[in-house]
Amino acid sequence: MSTDVLESTIAGLPLVDHHVHGAWTGPLGRVDFETLVTESDRPIPEFMTQFDSQIGFAIRRWCSPVLGLPAHASPEDYLARRADLGPAEVNRRLLAASGTGRWLIETGYRGDDVLGPAGMAEVSARPAHEVVRIEKVMEDVAASGVSAAGFPDRFREALAVQSAGAIGLKSIVAYRHGFAFDPAPPAEREVVEAAGRWLASGSTRVDDPTLLRFGLWAGVERGLPLQLHTGYGDPDVELHHCDPLLLTRWLKLVEPHGVDVMLLHCYPYQRNAGYLAQVFPHVYFDVGLGINYTGSRSDALIAESLELAPFAKVLFSSDAWGPAELHMLGAHLFRRGLARVLRGWVDAGEWTEADAVRVAVVIGVENASRVYRLEGAA
Amino acid sequence: MSTDVLESTIAGLPLVDHHVHGAWTGPLGRVDFETLVTESDRPIPEFMTQFDSQIGFAIRRWCSPVLGLPAHASPEDYLARRADLGPAEVNRRLLAASGTGRWLIETGYRGDDVLGPAGMAEVSARPAHEVVRIEKVMEDVAASGVSAAGFPDRFREALAVQSAGAIGLKSIVAYRHGFAFDPAPPAEREVVEAAGRWLASGSTRVDDPTLLRFGLWAGVERGLPLQLHTGYGDPDVELHHCDPLLLTRWLKLVEPHGVDVMLLHCYPYQRNAGYLAQVFPHVYFDVGLGINYTGSRSDALIAESLELAPFAKVLFSSDAWGPAELHMLGAHLFRRGLARVLRGWVDAGEWTEADAVRVAVVIGVENASRVYRLEGAA
Amino acid sequence: MSTDVLESTIAGLPLVDHHVHGAWTGPLGRVDFETLVTESDRPIPEFMTQFDSQIGFAIRRWCSPVLGLPAHASPEDYLARRADLGPAEVNRRLLAASGTGRWLIETGYRGDDVLGPAGMAEVSARPAHEVVRIEKVMEDVAASGVSAAGFPDRFREALAVQSAGAIGLKSIVAYRHGFAFDPAPPAEREVVEAAGRWLASGSTRVDDPTLLRFGLWAGVERGLPLQLHTGYGDPDVELHHCDPLLLTRWLKLVEPHGVDVMLLHCYPYQRNAGYLAQVFPHVYFDVGLGINYTGSRSDALIAESLELAPFAKVLFSSDAWGPAELHMLGAHLFRRGLARVLRGWVDAGEWTEADAVRVAVVIGVENASRVYRLEGAA
Repeated sequence: MSTDVLESTIAGLPLVDHHVHGAWTGPLGRVDFETLVTESDRPIPEFMTQFDSQIGFAIRRWCSPVLGLPAHASPEDYLARRADLGPAEVNRRLLAASGTGRWLIETGYRGDDVLGPAGMAEVSARPAHEVVRIEKVMEDVAASGVSAAGFPDRFREALAVQSAGAIGLKSIVAYRHGFAFDPAPPAEREVVEAAGRWLASGSTRVDDPTLLRFGLWAGVERGLPLQLHTGYGDPDVELHHCDPLLLTRWLKLVEPHGVDVMLLHCYPYQRNAGYLAQVFPHVYFDVGLGINYTGSRSDALIAESLELAPFAKVLFSSDAWGPAELHMLGAHLFRRGLARVLRGWVDAGEWTEADAVRVAVVIGVENASRVYRLEGAA
Repeated sequence: MSTDVLESTIAGLPLVDHHVHGAWTGPLGRVDFETLVTESDRPIPEFMTQFDSQIGFAIRRWCSPVLGLPAHASPEDYLARRADLGPAEVNRRLLAASGTGRWLIETGYRGDDVLGPAGMAEVSARPAHEVVRIEKVMEDVAASGVSAAGFPDRFREALAVQSAGAIGLKSIVAYRHGFAFDPAPPAEREVVEAAGRWLASGSTRVDDPTLLRFGLWAGVERGLPLQLHTGYGDPDVELHHCDPLLLTRWLKLVEPHGVDVMLLHCYPYQRNAGYLAQVFPHVYFDVGLGINYTGSRSDALIAESLELAPFAKVLFSSDAWGPAELHMLGAHLFRRGLARVLRGWVDAGEWTEADAVRVAVVIGVENASRVYRLEGAA
Repeated sequence: MSTDVLESTIAGLPLVDHHVHGAWTGPLGRVDFETLVTESDRPIPEFMTQFDSQIGFAIRRWCSPVLGLPAHASPEDYLARRADLGPAEVNRRLLAASGTGRWLIETGYRGDDVLGPAGMAEVSARPAHEVVRIEKVMEDVAASGVSAAGFPDRFREALAVQSAGAIGLKSIVAYRHGFAFDPAPPAEREVVEAAGRWLASGSTRVDDPTLLRFGLWAGVERGLPLQLHTGYGDPDVELHHCDPLLLTRWLKLVEPHGVDVMLLHCYPYQRNAGYLAQVFPHVYFDVGLGINYTGSRSDALIAESLELAPFAKVLFSSDAWGPAELHMLGAHLFRRGLARVLRGWVDAGEWTEADAVRVAVVIGVENASRVYRLEGAA
């Protein structure tokens, strides 16, 4: 092999982004742009700019050339150029630059502000598939008018209908309760009682642990790969309640059902996720989201994700939502970090380059293709 | 820019050491010296020497030349030279070699054994400011004689008086209870009851969670930046109770009060601290203390501190207490690690050198200057 | 010193493997081999091979030449060659290639499937010593027929007898309950009651927390160094319950008894273990097991183990059980990682090479020799 076959292979991988959201369709002024490139949901404090962070530097370094600017353009120049090109051209360029081969799009969060699967497929000229958020289905059912007694069946029906064309499900129980929940499925009677309390409360947001568990177990019954938000996210999470190890007993109960569990993001608990992926056949994980937000440090995360887990259990995702910079950077930084880490082991004589190439394809493409049964999918 | 402007800038930064204590004023024999360069409060076991540790090797490597010895001097030669020079000259040399520009000195721990702010300013010829330890004020109030009913007001008055010239407050609730406390302010009645129990107990040490919470919230009302011991410290902490994530709900309650919270040290939870610093506008952190005690590994800590947090939220501290080696090493290892980490990103073409220089100044000087309002301070 | 004295010293160290089990005595087909080189106790899923993991790649890289194959032999070639050589020759070669100088063999797990201390000493021509598993003794006592009232004394007698020639004890309380147990010794009456419940249950497995605490404290009274499984292991553990920090209060209670506590493995909590080893004179740790299973990443673990702990508190182990590849890799990867980490510090001018050599000998040989009193042992 030539000396850079590993790098050229990784650069050309048609990555399967197995957990991502749509690209923002409108223009973005500076304030809006900055608030979309942080997991904070607070206004950017006046004493700082989110451009002065790892992700800000990564945008200036890697996205500027995609928009026709020199690397490291200033935030002002970058946003001016972005505005000149317009949202459609910006999205087209950045999604193309990602080199992503398939999008597995979770549609449950502010779906009206961003492209849906069809829009993403059109703009990127790459296939897009849907992942359905369980809690969104549950909240839609509640909003549609339902009795407590009718709630369990109505939810199961709605989940079946809404996920009929989907390739996966997603749960945000991490956000709504954390992982320290009773691992067993709730009894139907408990679900009805909890639904009664929720429906009577007038809240549009489901955070009752019994209902969340009901949703999770309905997801398991549905049989599709089940994605779980894990670890790092916006301040709506309590991060220490999202350590994937807290799922251990639930994972053991799910195991006989034959459903694959996909632990998303996992930062800073990626080593814990790797442990679960080693010992449980149905557990997979990725370090998306954290890759984008740690920028130049993302190679360290990727390295930590390649410790205990068999290579058949590690996937790629960007978790991008909104600015297409996130879609592009997620893929770019993943390629860069993976190449850097694997190259180190090849150069040290510990791995063959052929093995490194093979592992890159497995992690970037093949694992997701197998788990989500993407071969031959539209 | 020349190729080493980053290194020369960092070498010359007038660092603001935003959490530090005074230098030891007396002579130090071997036993005393060794027991002051570990967080253990136990006698050094006879089978070992604390010189055979990362910090011991760092002292021999970096402090020896400051005392006029070759690098890597033996412990015996080092301590002999130290004794020959005498405490005043040792302190003068090591504090000068730190290149620290300002000292923010927490005076609440064994203040009689070490230099106070005035002494530190005199010896180092650099400004020194005071940070007041909340629990020390509370224990002084109790020792002065006070009724339970009068305790809350007497404490608030004492805090106001003692912090009148201070630029920050510090809490050691991590040591006295850990972070798993009820985040809400206690009712005045509860405080009086808890004070009654404490005063009746005869204990000079405050560890009642209601009183600790009362102290914390009084600190919030006081309005100065509020430092919290976080993570690594002596065996009086239970380290897992000092994960800053346990503060999440309390941080949310503090947020509307407009008070900045400074998470100190944080090892090994620096990634968790970085998360909090990203999502909450009022949260800052540093990795001091751990830098000294991990020595040659401190570059790894510094790198981990530069992941999620915007650069406006990361600070420098040494947490030195006692031997001035700790003041010097804290600054030296911080400069060395920061330069090494940033240089790697510059050389890889990911950051510009100008950005790296700017971030170094922000972290080493500007963030503390802004938060503590040091511009124009004496 | 010549430029590679560090590497040659480390390559030649007669390592004390202070926690290891016996080598597998029979032939191993592919399915059995793969299931013995993972901590998962589940069948290897058909969509993957355990050879595609860090340990799989490490076996192909480092063990192939020991069996007379080129580095990076395919799994098929490797297993064919292994079968051709036969178990005795494979064990002889791999144990010799480990360069291990002494084996401290824990005999409590499936002792009939693997070599005992005598067998290991014979095959390797190196001394082997026994470490007795507390819970195995307890389960043997229960199986032998005993009344609840007689249980405490019968257990203490059996422990004394079975450990008469041993150099250490081991507890798997991490597996059976986790570390969140009442740290104080149970009262004799409580032990009798718990023994009554257990004996009546007919279970051969001890997992009652009172009995486990009783066993631990009997181990402390016995006075030998006490090894604790910590962190990473098979899915019978709940990993977050095995954070060594959960032992803090128990360690404080053990401290006055003068018994050394050896925290084994510790992944991913090695930094927490290093903290405990710094602040408590009687606490030691290693990062074995994790070294094998993280393969090319094991240098990162070794580096993390060299942060807070004095060098007198870090040890080497492989925790190998079964395939002698694990005995060889444990030693080989430890040597490789230690050399790489120390070399980095020497080359950076931070450590002298003489100090690095000294620390390698301390960690690899001397600490275990001192703690287990191996000088002059058979």
